[in-house]
Amino acid sequence: MSPWPTVSRRRLTEGRFVSAFQDEVLLAEGVTGTWEWVDVADAVRVVAVDAEGRIALVEDEFYLQRRRLLLVPGGGVERAEEPAAAARRELEEETGWRAGRLDPLGVIEQLPTATPARAHLFLARELAPGTLAREASEAGMTLHWRTLDEAVAAVREGAVTEAGSVSAILLAAFRL
Amino acid sequence: MSPWPTVSRRRLTEGRFVSAFQDEVLLAEGVTGTWEWVDVADAVRVVAVDAEGRIALVEDEFYLQRRRLLLVPGGGVERAEEPAAAARRELEEETGWRAGRLDPLGVIEQLPTATPARAHLFLARELAPGTLAREASEAGMTLHWRTLDEAVAAVREGAVTEAGSVSAILLAAFRL
Repeated sequence: MSPWPTVSRRRLTEGRFVSAFQDEVLLAEGVTGTWEWVDVADAVRVVAVDAEGRIALVEDEFYLQRRRLLLVPGGGVERAEEPAAAARRELEEETGWRAGRLDPLGVIEQLPTATPARAHLFLARELAPGTLAREASEAGMTLHWRTLDEAVAAVREGAVTEAGSVSAILLAAFRL
Repeated sequence: MSPWPTVSRRRLTEGRFVSAFQDEVLLAEGVTGTWEWVDVADAVRVVAVDAEGRIALVEDEFYLQRRRLLLVPGGGVERAEEPAAAARRELEEETGWRAGRLDPLGVIEQLPTATPARAHLFLARELAPGTLAREASEAGMTLHWRTLDEAVAAVREGAVTEAGSVSAILLAAFRL
């Protein structure tokens, strides 16, 4: 049980992708405080391994970072979508490859004091050709195949920094 | 360069810990769109290794998750504080141990589409006794020493889920 029961909740702003809330929480008998948090969609990230043991990395522009980031394929889980379905969908949309086999690698909490959102990590194997379907905002995305050792080196050198990608690549390295 | 220059920025809400913004961005010549994002403090996470090769894990209640999470020590970087100073401060406050030696393990972006905030990861060694100084909200925090192998197993089994802790423990395992 959480030590702080929720007394009331106020929505501060409602956006298409980000909504902010302020909860009044009971800190102790008769003492309340506030907890600010945001609601964003859960995410998926996929380490997709091809027949030669190489994994797919995608590189794309990130608005807030003002630079290109190198990630494993993935994105937001849609409303009422299962994480595994989102992982299959995002992998095919971003790389044009379908997962014949998909195994869970774990679930992480990216920013647990600020949001309950989680990232669901997967290992995709037995890849088969599918249909590339990048979004308009992903027009500058590029696809790169790297050995797992090269991907781990990219994480260790700071070339991969997105939390889900870092976690998924390192977890895959321990698994494979 | 980002593909989307910022045309204007509107603050939607300003909190003590979380502020939300909506940017108007130029998607193409004459076409604008919006980007919602939140400002939260950068964080630090520290893998602190003792003389026996064990690392410090702290367990504490998390309000949004309504359960206890197991993490490596860390917390928010204060205004005008260097990440390394925040790492030393948080380690001592949460565990009562001071880092004689502190090496960077990397920097991750926890939720790069929603916030520019980053987590700075460190490896602390040559520990010396210091002063425990937990915050009131950390009254239920407990400290646990585990071998690095046990910590990696805890990550792989899903007992450690916070992104900075997952990344820091796995990066430390590759380093040591």
